[in-house]
Amino acid sequence: MRHLISMKHMSNVAIYQLFHKAEQIQKGQYRKLDKQMFAANLFLEPSTRTKNSFIVAERKLGLEVLDFTEQGSSLLKGESLYDTARTFESIGADVIVLRQEQEGVLAHLTEKLQIPIINAGDGSGEHPTQCLLDLYTIFQEFHSFKGLKVVIAGDIRHSRVARSNAHALRQLGADVAFVSPEAWRDDTISENYISVDEAVEFADVMMLLRIQRERHSDKDTTQEYLQSYGLTVERERKMKEHAIVLHPAPVNRGVEIADELVEAPRSRIFKQMENGVTIRMAILSTLLEGEIRNENSDQKYQNA
Amino acid sequence: MRHLISMKHMSNVAIYQLFHKAEQIQKGQYRKLDKQMFAANLFLEPSTRTKNSFIVAERKLGLEVLDFTEQGSSLLKGESLYDTARTFESIGADVIVLRQEQEGVLAHLTEKLQIPIINAGDGSGEHPTQCLLDLYTIFQEFHSFKGLKVVIAGDIRHSRVARSNAHALRQLGADVAFVSPEAWRDDTISENYISVDEAVEFADVMMLLRIQRERHSDKDTTQEYLQSYGLTVERERKMKEHAIVLHPAPVNRGVEIADELVEAPRSRIFKQMENGVTIRMAILSTLLEGEIRNENSDQKYQNA
Amino acid sequence: MRHLISMKHMSNVAIYQLFHKAEQIQKGQYRKLDKQMFAANLFLEPSTRTKNSFIVAERKLGLEVLDFTEQGSSLLKGESLYDTARTFESIGADVIVLRQEQEGVLAHLTEKLQIPIINAGDGSGEHPTQCLLDLYTIFQEFHSFKGLKVVIAGDIRHSRVARSNAHALRQLGADVAFVSPEAWRDDTISENYISVDEAVEFADVMMLLRIQRERHSDKDTTQEYLQSYGLTVERERKMKEHAIVLHPAPVNRGVEIADELVEAPRSRIFKQMENGVTIRMAILSTLLEGEIRNENSDQKYQNA
Repeated sequence: MRHLISMKHMSNVAIYQLFHKAEQIQKGQYRKLDKQMFAANLFLEPSTRTKNSFIVAERKLGLEVLDFTEQGSSLLKGESLYDTARTFESIGADVIVLRQEQEGVLAHLTEKLQIPIINAGDGSGEHPTQCLLDLYTIFQEFHSFKGLKVVIAGDIRHSRVARSNAHALRQLGADVAFVSPEAWRDDTISENYISVDEAVEFADVMMLLRIQRERHSDKDTTQEYLQSYGLTVERERKMKEHAIVLHPAPVNRGVEIADELVEAPRSRIFKQMENGVTIRMAILSTLLEGEIRNENSDQKYQNA
Repeated sequence: MRHLISMKHMSNVAIYQLFHKAEQIQKGQYRKLDKQMFAANLFLEPSTRTKNSFIVAERKLGLEVLDFTEQGSSLLKGESLYDTARTFESIGADVIVLRQEQEGVLAHLTEKLQIPIINAGDGSGEHPTQCLLDLYTIFQEFHSFKGLKVVIAGDIRHSRVARSNAHALRQLGADVAFVSPEAWRDDTISENYISVDEAVEFADVMMLLRIQRERHSDKDTTQEYLQSYGLTVERERKMKEHAIVLHPAPVNRGVEIADELVEAPRSRIFKQMENGVTIRMAILSTLLEGEIRNENSDQKYQNA
Repeated sequence: MRHLISMKHMSNVAIYQLFHKAEQIQKGQYRKLDKQMFAANLFLEPSTRTKNSFIVAERKLGLEVLDFTEQGSSLLKGESLYDTARTFESIGADVIVLRQEQEGVLAHLTEKLQIPIINAGDGSGEHPTQCLLDLYTIFQEFHSFKGLKVVIAGDIRHSRVARSNAHALRQLGADVAFVSPEAWRDDTISENYISVDEAVEFADVMMLLRIQRERHSDKDTTQEYLQSYGLTVERERKMKEHAIVLHPAPVNRGVEIADELVEAPRSRIFKQMENGVTIRMAILSTLLEGEIRNENSDQKYQNA
């Protein structure tokens, strides 16, 4: 693993290796880096949660943190994403964590840079570290994906989480169904849409997606959403005893899920955040170990 | 002490314990934390001075720093202050330093979070770390508050410093008087208002408050303020030989105090900033020591 | 060397001493600071590249980083640059790195503060760390400046790089010529203007300046610039075999230089960025060593 760009490039073996490393990290079986190395967090779309999760992961590994936060448009004043990334490589970044809004530009970067790149969300493309933390949270609970019944509910069409997760869950052997208003369905991901009332009885795992209020400004839509597609208190009571609820957060309380369920016993929402740090540590150390192994051929890491 | 929310919760014993710890810190008698711990600085109102003072204090103790700076309104897009704070707790924050504009929301947070919270200013409510650094600066000078004559001068009504300080100074035995234009008085704090000319002869300590130019846009008001209520060169000459001048900064030079007095021998304005770091170190280490003592029951701190 | 404000204060000896230190750093012959010290990066004009270069340099030396980024106007709401700088000194900064837009205010600061100040760009005045990294990049290549033919091409009038570099290069013995449209010439710097076609045959070093698109909004100007004054593929072919190309970046690809030449073999553009970190480490450690030597007389550094 040289970069983490897309779940499509990850085999089941690679996924389980990451989970194994994450479990070790959670038991405290990890060491800080022996050398001073720098992570450049380039967040061209804002994201408090993901960025701070990476920062904690980086600092726990002993990485130095470079922080570049700028809205896409102002960046591109005469400087391409490539030039920005190459600049951070030149000043000493050993890994780049990149969130930006254009789909598909990362392949170009991975060809031209010598350091690992982690996709921290590209437009409505992919968000593989979120996907991996979701999968890891499920794995912690069920220890296997074979035949596991997972429902993904929400705005399937515009969600980068839906796309990555649907792909990976199926590859791992899960049985995936979807809940979504007609207008937000995406047939290229699935045709297996069910009602939310069917879903709560079917699911071992309910993955609720965030309604992007920015995209759906129609207030009625979001207010009616809970009743038509969300997890209400009544519906939650019908779930299997062992079933769990995931949400990538931030939660719109009372929209995707009833306010009082956010911290219900079967909610893993805050557990996901904890796991996010762990899984990002596993990813960073996997990518940087490759770098460290090559150190003798690279003066850069010798005296830093 | 589990949190620092309000001066109203602090006994004199607790205050003197902090001062004792601050004195030790100033002599270099402190150690960095043995474990890697994270402080989340959530500043929903801007404050360069207070935030950087906390950062220095945190780094001197060896704390990792997470920095979240956002204007109040944009935060509340679908996410409550509680959810933000809980997110930082979930990703690994061991203490939260919080500045925000709503009075009285902190009690709710302290009930629901497991980690200490430090109030770094809540609207026009309280600002206890500023209060404690002011008190510590006075204590350094006079070693006691009993019968000490303190004048607080400025916009009493809108100042969180005035409220916290008035309460604590009286509790410690000081004799507190106030200088303020009629319109900015607050009878719930005191009815003991005197003229600035009386004040300079009375005071052992003159605490000048910052005029919030943002709130008082009337230019004439601020220009006339120095003559009517401020510390002019003439007035300063009438002060007791040992009397000192405090100001929470940033100073409006020529408004609350004559430009040339900002660094006068009796001014402790920059000393207060130095003490701010020390007192914040004392607070952080007091709050986190409690945490550290409980570590065996809390896996979180074992392998971090 | 107590501060780094202007190239005009730097003797050739001081420059060569810095280069010697930079060479040692590049060989890994340097140590982190023994004590915890703080650098305050006060960037009142935005600059991703320069700021992050300083951060990497600071962290490699083990310095703690305080980051203050604000647009000039909002700073000056009732607080002078001096008060801001003095605040950072009071809370514990051991060195200030300052970018701001007013020319000539730094002399005042250096008189009043006790800690070293590094000018990271002042308006269209000077930008000595950029100058020194340019010079160091040339020195790495040619080991001497005597008789070296250097061309500086671009908006001479508004460039702080042009001013600093022209002065220093001449002082070091180089033969400096200029390429610039009439409107952007500055006769106080030089009267030795040549055409770009003459320049490519003359130069051992072509220093291209960035066209400030912000200042020159006329779109035609920038599009025609490459043909009339820029480094095209055809012109590059006429350069001496050993000649190198510098640019302070960010590059406007296709304006100052043809897109495909940015990473051509003779381009040192990304090398300059690497050298920027090294030279800033050399500067910081030179300035702070002076501080450290005086530590016994200064309680500040004893227990930090």
